[in-house]
Amino acid sequence: MGRWEPNARGRLAEAALELYSERGYEQTTVAEIAKRAGLTERTFFRHYADKREVLFAGSGELQELFVRAVAQAPESAAPIDVLALGLDAASHAFVDLHEQARKRHAVITANAELQERELIKLASMSAALADTLRERGVPEPAASLTAEAGMAVFKIAFESWIAAAEEGDLARLMRESLDELKAVTTAGRKPSVSPTAS
Amino acid sequence: MGRWEPNARGRLAEAALELYSERGYEQTTVAEIAKRAGLTERTFFRHYADKREVLFAGSGELQELFVRAVAQAPESAAPIDVLALGLDAASHAFVDLHEQARKRHAVITANAELQERELIKLASMSAALADTLRERGVPEPAASLTAEAGMAVFKIAFESWIAAAEEGDLARLMRESLDELKAVTTAGRKPSVSPTAS
Repeated sequence: MGRWEPNARGRLAEAALELYSERGYEQTTVAEIAKRAGLTERTFFRHYADKREVLFAGSGELQELFVRAVAQAPESAAPIDVLALGLDAASHAFVDLHEQARKRHAVITANAELQERELIKLASMSAALADTLRERGVPEPAASLTAEAGMAVFKIAFESWIAAAEEGDLARLMRESLDELKAVTTAGRKPSVSPTAS
Repeated sequence: MGRWEPNARGRLAEAALELYSERGYEQTTVAEIAKRAGLTERTFFRHYADKREVLFAGSGELQELFVRAVAQAPESAAPIDVLALGLDAASHAFVDLHEQARKRHAVITANAELQERELIKLASMSAALADTLRERGVPEPAASLTAEAGMAVFKIAFESWIAAAEEGDLARLMRESLDELKAVTTAGRKPSVSPTAS
């Protein structure tokens, strides 16, 4: 290992996001990122496998927060309330990161390959959530449906948070989005009522 | 245009799926697909842009069925019931295609690039659904949440249909999956109830 660089990881991430925003993701090299951060390429590769990983390094942590909250929820809690606890925990990963998240989102939206990567990350988070729900004894298909519904709520709340100019309360947006999903699914005909002749 | 080949498109799709299943997607060439179908490469390229497109050619038709049913639903129908009509219409695209869908699913599951492509197709179907719901006057975030919930229901029902050895009733699985989502979202605490002190 080389000498210790104070917060090298954070500085590299910040420099990368700046450059991706200024010049575009494809036009930016690792050498330029390292230079902007005042570090060497070698230091870059001690922290990130490649320039794409800088954008997705937080996904593992996010998934861990989400899954841990679901795993540790009270045993008696209904799956949807367990999900609410997971969403709340996940939202904490973004506190004070609104500007960074906005920049990252713009970079990803501009690049098809990065968009695909983002979808893969969300799908793997959904699979991890479903696993954790099954471990809690939630049967299928309820476990997978709850996990997929959770990702839908997460995505919608996150996009609304990102769209605002100032950092709002992501945890509150998650709760509102989940309540909206409940309202949507209960607004229709009762499943047991048969269609009236028309 | 060359001479007319009876059902060339279908024969090419069938030959491609056979070869992808036997040798793997990556190991199969367009020349081999054309040969297996008893057709020329030129005929292949009149029907498909490349060997990947054979696997995704049905996505446009599926999305169209789904979106059209949503657009044409009775004006008074609640978004979730509109969604149910869309799911029902979408399920009709797969009647008598169970074996083909199983093979296709196995090919896609074995290849990361194809999985990413599949996720992109589902995301674009979700976006098209949300657009159509907004055109019906459904406000945000209800439109996007309903669309995302719809994709969740579609995905879970479809996976369950695919997993069975014999072709089951996909439309019924869609209805059951939607009812299960309703059950999941209504099982927890009421949104308006504040948490009890603990």
